[in-house]
Amino acid sequence: MSDKRLAAASEENLFRIFTIPEAPDSTLARIEQEVSQNLDGFLRDNIVAVEKPLSEIEQDFQDSVVPEHPQFVSALADELLDKLVAQSVHTSSPSFIGHMTSALPYFLLPLSKLMVGLNQNLVKIETSKAFTPLERQVIGMLHRIAYGGTRTEAHNDQYYKSVMHSADTSLGAFCSGGTVANISALWIARNTLLGPNGSFKGVSKEGLFRAMSHYGYSRLVVLVSERGHYSLGKAADVLGLGRQDIVSVKTDENNKICIESLEQRITELKAENAGILSLVGVAGTTETGNIDPLDKMADIAEREGIHFHVDAAWGGATMMSNNQRPLLKGIERADSITVDAHKQMYVPMGAGMVLFKDAHSTDVIEHHAEYILRKGSKDLGSHTLEGSRPGMSMLVYACLKVMGRSGYEMLIDRSIDTAKYFADLINAEDDFELVSEPELCLLTYRYVPKVVKDYMETCDAEEKHIINELLNDLTRFIQKKQRESGRSFVSRTRLTPKAHDGQTITVFRCVLANPLTTKDILKDILAEQKEIAKESWRSLPAILKKIASL
Amino acid sequence: MSDKRLAAASEENLFRIFTIPEAPDSTLARIEQEVSQNLDGFLRDNIVAVEKPLSEIEQDFQDSVVPEHPQFVSALADELLDKLVAQSVHTSSPSFIGHMTSALPYFLLPLSKLMVGLNQNLVKIETSKAFTPLERQVIGMLHRIAYGGTRTEAHNDQYYKSVMHSADTSLGAFCSGGTVANISALWIARNTLLGPNGSFKGVSKEGLFRAMSHYGYSRLVVLVSERGHYSLGKAADVLGLGRQDIVSVKTDENNKICIESLEQRITELKAENAGILSLVGVAGTTETGNIDPLDKMADIAEREGIHFHVDAAWGGATMMSNNQRPLLKGIERADSITVDAHKQMYVPMGAGMVLFKDAHSTDVIEHHAEYILRKGSKDLGSHTLEGSRPGMSMLVYACLKVMGRSGYEMLIDRSIDTAKYFADLINAEDDFELVSEPELCLLTYRYVPKVVKDYMETCDAEEKHIINELLNDLTRFIQKKQRESGRSFVSRTRLTPKAHDGQTITVFRCVLANPLTTKDILKDILAEQKEIAKESWRSLPAILKKIASL
Repeated sequence: MSDKRLAAASEENLFRIFTIPEAPDSTLARIEQEVSQNLDGFLRDNIVAVEKPLSEIEQDFQDSVVPEHPQFVSALADELLDKLVAQSVHTSSPSFIGHMTSALPYFLLPLSKLMVGLNQNLVKIETSKAFTPLERQVIGMLHRIAYGGTRTEAHNDQYYKSVMHSADTSLGAFCSGGTVANISALWIARNTLLGPNGSFKGVSKEGLFRAMSHYGYSRLVVLVSERGHYSLGKAADVLGLGRQDIVSVKTDENNKICIESLEQRITELKAENAGILSLVGVAGTTETGNIDPLDKMADIAEREGIHFHVDAAWGGATMMSNNQRPLLKGIERADSITVDAHKQMYVPMGAGMVLFKDAHSTDVIEHHAEYILRKGSKDLGSHTLEGSRPGMSMLVYACLKVMGRSGYEMLIDRSIDTAKYFADLINAEDDFELVSEPELCLLTYRYVPKVVKDYMETCDAEEKHIINELLNDLTRFIQKKQRESGRSFVSRTRLTPKAHDGQTITVFRCVLANPLTTKDILKDILAEQKEIAKESWRSLPAILKKIASL
Repeated sequence: MSDKRLAAASEENLFRIFTIPEAPDSTLARIEQEVSQNLDGFLRDNIVAVEKPLSEIEQDFQDSVVPEHPQFVSALADELLDKLVAQSVHTSSPSFIGHMTSALPYFLLPLSKLMVGLNQNLVKIETSKAFTPLERQVIGMLHRIAYGGTRTEAHNDQYYKSVMHSADTSLGAFCSGGTVANISALWIARNTLLGPNGSFKGVSKEGLFRAMSHYGYSRLVVLVSERGHYSLGKAADVLGLGRQDIVSVKTDENNKICIESLEQRITELKAENAGILSLVGVAGTTETGNIDPLDKMADIAEREGIHFHVDAAWGGATMMSNNQRPLLKGIERADSITVDAHKQMYVPMGAGMVLFKDAHSTDVIEHHAEYILRKGSKDLGSHTLEGSRPGMSMLVYACLKVMGRSGYEMLIDRSIDTAKYFADLINAEDDFELVSEPELCLLTYRYVPKVVKDYMETCDAEEKHIINELLNDLTRFIQKKQRESGRSFVSRTRLTPKAHDGQTITVFRCVLANPLTTKDILKDILAEQKEIAKESWRSLPAILKKIASL
């Protein structure tokens, strides 16, 4: 009955979708019930095990015409189940350890629905009311985790009381994700470096061309290790620097920025009269999970008067573990920090944050309009890159309260323990090679049959190079096959480890943040990879031949 | 029982929030039930009628320390109801006609939950699979609404079949909202205008400073009417133009860009050797809802070879009404178009889109990384400003299917009819002045007692000016009081209408997009405003005196 309400496109029928809820026996209500009661079961039952090739999936999404007539909600629900959900990715599966998306706490499901139902718009108080102070509070809490505590006495109760809800200050900003957070941080760094000066009204008003001319810089650069996230290149492009102005500093054997190289680059850049917009430390590189020596970088930034940004999109949550916090020593000296709550804070997609040490940082990007964001207002939109935004801060708040700092600590410590266990497992296997050790809960490795491993220890550089190329093919093959078979998923990336004389090799990449990933699952993943490798033997005659020739 | 599971922060207990759903008798389950079955009732019951001052609300959001220990979900739920929901805004109320957020169709609630449960990440196929072709399809559908049909024969079935899912092309991009959409469009315009040329590798690689030097432009500007959205200033700042490089073109008495002034500005800009990055047409100005003469602007853009962008964040959905579509004539000639599905497409917050006429437009912003967005991949993240993004396209798709084009047409036509009805109502009242007529479903007006109105027709300019200032106070007073009393809400803005010789006056601003807003509600809103005005008489002695002196 309720599903038939849209049989005809009458005005009356159309109103019903705004006023009459889904019937309890409707397909959509059934989906919702299953999602609420057993999310993992629902996803396992409804996502097909064996992946269809993308080109086949695309066949279901060919129609480019908006349908002329309304359609039953039930028909839509069936269609979405068949076409979309069936071919989506079970990102919260404990055996899908290839990406940064993990399981979600159950209480976030009803809360997400409440958030959508409330449909607040955080751009201004008029459309968000209490959500505005809530968001400021959540930012305050994260800010205090980063900058407060015993580390800087200045950041005490009194400080937060005075700045958290002030119209003149901003401890940070919510945004859709790490990319916008990084752009926001560098935007502020740019506008601060090229601020008003004498008759020059600042880059914000007069633009980058006039700013560079005024300040006499030959170029404007961002310094970051070669493991920096690709969003920094995008940020440079957007902000009017060139992508070539992301100056890549080489990393040491642990994928951390090499301080000597950094010093050298700074000397060179100063000599060519380049403006250094920001020095970016990475706290959890996307590819290996390593953390730059932030404290040493902060020393350099301080000495040189350079803006220091830490991209902790992935690793930022680690600050909540007192046990692991020392790994991030120095982050409290950063001018700005990017943290994604949708990564290791277990919040759904779309919850990025940027924190500012100085609560007046955002003055250089403040903007106003006639109908909102009036001067002196507390509208959050006056200092965010985005405009209209949903109330995601409620979900972050909920997680902080329900898990508590100690709960996050437990989750984070456990993730790292799991990664270390997996590293031990890989090291104990004859046919695998651990490529990067887990510092946080991320590691990389590859499959290398023992005979090949042994041979590589004796052969010359040229042979080694050839074998590595063949192993790269094998890694790609195994990763793809494993993904397609649907039981488990690891991702892959390319690294140039010292151990392979700088040759770029393809590796499996695992993120062990899902608390439901068990030791048995990890054993199974390795076993499956060995199985696939064996099957693929015939499809890799070159390696076979090479082995045979040993 | 289920609520007690987090009494102690044991690892076992923490796991339960990932594995055991909310108990059916829990507070959160009850909230969810109410939201699902009677959203309006839930919001009316739980949002307090009379608004607390923000400073009081802030008292509930003072704690800057992340709680050390886990907390019961039930305690959190109670807290959120008391502190947050109670003091939030009933944005979907039919009597809240002051903002662009409207009622949501019921079926989006369970679908939103499904979206969160699936937690796909649209940055790449590995974490979104079928959601990627779905998003491409939704963009394709909107693209065809904008550019296809009988208007351009080139955009037929065959065209969409060939480009919609191609790795080399992109018909648009999803993003969090109109601001990011506008920035994306202007980013592309900038990188196209300042592309590779001879030995110059393009602004994307070499940066804006070198690009301007290479091309010899004195400055880079964006042309838009003075009614352009404030996000364009932000876009200019972010992209390295100055905010002063947003060249404001004056509008005619209907708040549409004045073509003569536009021509004149172009002539001046060419004379000073400025590069014109983009001419931006507004399809639904935020403050008055008017649409620029897009077709004439397209003529000029074509003649001058200027990128033509249409900011249809709010008005874009109007394209789906065949009856109203002529209002947007010329939009199909735009190089890019911004549309927010969370405005007149009735989708929850966070669903912006930008469409590109030329499916190769995004080549100039394409970026890659080692582990995702590899060359030749169909990962959406290779040409979006944002990185990780949720699967909002599913909600847009659902609306397109369930409402159909004709359903949207009905909603849009009805909104405009409602606005026209309200305008008639205002015109029929002695004590109100309609300031801007509704072209779409947005209008502005103010309260002016008849005696004052009559007097203003006879008095001199100076007196008129004084009275207008007093009326501005009165408008602000009424708007604030009405909002605080909680029964209804109109917003306010400032305009400089011709009828008042360019004096800036404060007006009520109404958006009539909520299909549940009835004629009676509109009558009540006017009645309430008159009531408040009468009460406020004593607090506005100056006007009283003025009236008395008549």
